[in-house]
Amino acid sequence: MQSWIESANAKEAPFPLQNLPFGVASINGANPVCVSAIGDKVINLAVLEAAKLLEVASKPVFNQPYLNDFMSAGPNAWQSVRERLQTLLSDNGDAALKDGPVSNVLFDLPQAQLHLPFRIAEYTDFYAGKQHAFNVGCIFRGPENALPPNWLHIPIGYNGRASSVVVSGTPIHRPLGQIKPPGTEVPTFGRCERLDIELELGAVVGTPSALGSPITLEQAEDMIFGYVLLNDWSARDIQAWEYQPLGPFQGKAFGTTISPWVITKAALEPFRTQAPDRETPLLSYLEQSQPSGYDIELETYIRPSGAAQATRLSKTNAKHLYYSAAQQLAHHAIGGCAMNTGDLLGSGTISGPTSDEYGSLLEMCWGGKNPIALDTGEIRTFIEDGDELTLRGRAIGADYTIGFGECSGIILPAPAFP
Amino acid sequence: MQSWIESANAKEAPFPLQNLPFGVASINGANPVCVSAIGDKVINLAVLEAAKLLEVASKPVFNQPYLNDFMSAGPNAWQSVRERLQTLLSDNGDAALKDGPVSNVLFDLPQAQLHLPFRIAEYTDFYAGKQHAFNVGCIFRGPENALPPNWLHIPIGYNGRASSVVVSGTPIHRPLGQIKPPGTEVPTFGRCERLDIELELGAVVGTPSALGSPITLEQAEDMIFGYVLLNDWSARDIQAWEYQPLGPFQGKAFGTTISPWVITKAALEPFRTQAPDRETPLLSYLEQSQPSGYDIELETYIRPSGAAQATRLSKTNAKHLYYSAAQQLAHHAIGGCAMNTGDLLGSGTISGPTSDEYGSLLEMCWGGKNPIALDTGEIRTFIEDGDELTLRGRAIGADYTIGFGECSGIILPAPAFP
Repeated sequence: MQSWIESANAKEAPFPLQNLPFGVASINGANPVCVSAIGDKVINLAVLEAAKLLEVASKPVFNQPYLNDFMSAGPNAWQSVRERLQTLLSDNGDAALKDGPVSNVLFDLPQAQLHLPFRIAEYTDFYAGKQHAFNVGCIFRGPENALPPNWLHIPIGYNGRASSVVVSGTPIHRPLGQIKPPGTEVPTFGRCERLDIELELGAVVGTPSALGSPITLEQAEDMIFGYVLLNDWSARDIQAWEYQPLGPFQGKAFGTTISPWVITKAALEPFRTQAPDRETPLLSYLEQSQPSGYDIELETYIRPSGAAQATRLSKTNAKHLYYSAAQQLAHHAIGGCAMNTGDLLGSGTISGPTSDEYGSLLEMCWGGKNPIALDTGEIRTFIEDGDELTLRGRAIGADYTIGFGECSGIILPAPAFP
Repeated sequence: MQSWIESANAKEAPFPLQNLPFGVASINGANPVCVSAIGDKVINLAVLEAAKLLEVASKPVFNQPYLNDFMSAGPNAWQSVRERLQTLLSDNGDAALKDGPVSNVLFDLPQAQLHLPFRIAEYTDFYAGKQHAFNVGCIFRGPENALPPNWLHIPIGYNGRASSVVVSGTPIHRPLGQIKPPGTEVPTFGRCERLDIELELGAVVGTPSALGSPITLEQAEDMIFGYVLLNDWSARDIQAWEYQPLGPFQGKAFGTTISPWVITKAALEPFRTQAPDRETPLLSYLEQSQPSGYDIELETYIRPSGAAQATRLSKTNAKHLYYSAAQQLAHHAIGGCAMNTGDLLGSGTISGPTSDEYGSLLEMCWGGKNPIALDTGEIRTFIEDGDELTLRGRAIGADYTIGFGECSGIILPAPAFP
């Protein structure tokens, strides 16, 4: 499937005709609108819609600074917009855009300033990476009780803080908080000294469910609009002191970065793969027919302040996730919790079996014991001020690539307080 | 301070001139607008504002189905509206309303259907009742390690689910979920059998703070708009199996009920009281000048299906809370978490020192060991289908009462699933 936008047709181009991600951008400084991307171009969907080249609903959904109206239009609307865009952009499709009178639709990507693509309703972070859960358990409790007893039965998650979610490129302040190092009697107040990343996928809920109404796995699949890269920045020392008995709180509330492009579920469908083998049977409300995972290559990078090049820290794959987003969503609603358009579900940190496949510095440096050598000659255990951390993701097909773009953030010093 | 609305002047009337709570109501079936209450009357604030008898901001804030626009106008606006209403309603104030030409302002309370008073931005539930934390610790871990080691240093809290918050009177479905009774090998799927209430106050955040910007206790105080009663319905069996290591999730996500009237911080100011003695010094960002608590009487009631009268289960007081809402809010933002207009902060379950002062059935029946006899002759450990649970609250002054109204909900059977 080739496009008349030539830059979309290279095998490694992140935004081919098969991708068509959705985002929100200010183009040349104008008001933010909903956009897509093809090759090296951004597509102004609001202009396409106003020109009647694209129709979604009885009222416009794309002339908005968020995708929520489009997302709430549901899976049939998502599919028909995807197909219409493919027709308008393919080299043997409808020439209405290619040869038509409508201008101001296609712009070079650097002309677009990308924003948070949707209003985050609520943010939930799961813990579906088994290797990560095992590694963290080993570091803190030893290998015998590494995996919590409920882990193989429940897609464990906690409610995060939606107000902390920002788009890639937004600087993050190192948090202040209570810290109680091992062996001390009382906590002290100060800056986080064990600042970390968590490499995750974020699932974006498109359509809602009602309070008091559990949903099936099939309904959950239909509700998912797409996926983003997600870095759940973590303050390990703050978290360690606070998290018992009610879970992570300020250790996870100072920033969560997502990539600006929502990759649709439709674009990822060819990359479905088997989930890891079940070690114990799941309860029937969580039993998903295979293949329920995705084959998506994921990488983490660090670039210290002043360094010209980033060092790749690790490379792993989304296929390691033990629970799918549909399983997480079905579990999220099983007690009757209402789910809404714009809910964001973090997958949990994705780590592969070997140390070059880990999705957090905590695991890479094994709790601080094994410093990491960077290409610059510097060493790291946790993040230092000025470091830029970046996640990248792509699904690689036989003749095209679905790129996720980047999820990046620089760490600024802790704020002065009070 | 007397009102020309005579019903406001009785010492036990819940809505005297000193209260003036804020809510949202459909009056005689009309579109929802912002309202207040005086005596046995509801006050249509949208009509008062349109008639220029009340001015808040350059654009109207009260002709809305939520208080958020008024809340975000800030503490000076809250105070000036309060003073203006007191002037219009007092028997020696401005006669513009009493004798003026504006009609359709005052209606009998039963003509008003009360709604959720504000759009919940995010919901956080704290754990600031020391007796409750101690009791729960005793029930599950024994008295020696009852209080978690961080409890006297951190206002422990977790992020709840805003989509589960409903207004008093909304029925709640008993949740389904994973349960693993003690002694069993694997979890089963089924209905919650240990359904409970949690008696709490909810603090309502009026004005926002920015991501990356911790706030002082003084700033936190200024950001709080008011308080509601809050029942954090809890599924103890679901919670027990899921909550390690990341905290409560589906055990707390099926419903949280709040009372429809937001009692302003200004109305509660005369009821400030000393917080409990500090057993260990707090870090300076949490050190609040006294008095930082509130003297508010709180009661819990249960009415089984078909019973004419409710049985009072317990009576306690908000003064038992170890941490204030301002301390919770300051802690919430200390890592840089952005706080927003409409954030709701549950205080944590409020229990006094004796068993007739406990704020949850878990404590009253001591984990199921001590069944509770109701006035109807029935007994309860946890909630049965058809039971109506109600919270009541009031601050009692020398010559007037600040009433919170009721926070009530009936439990419906678990939904059919799938």
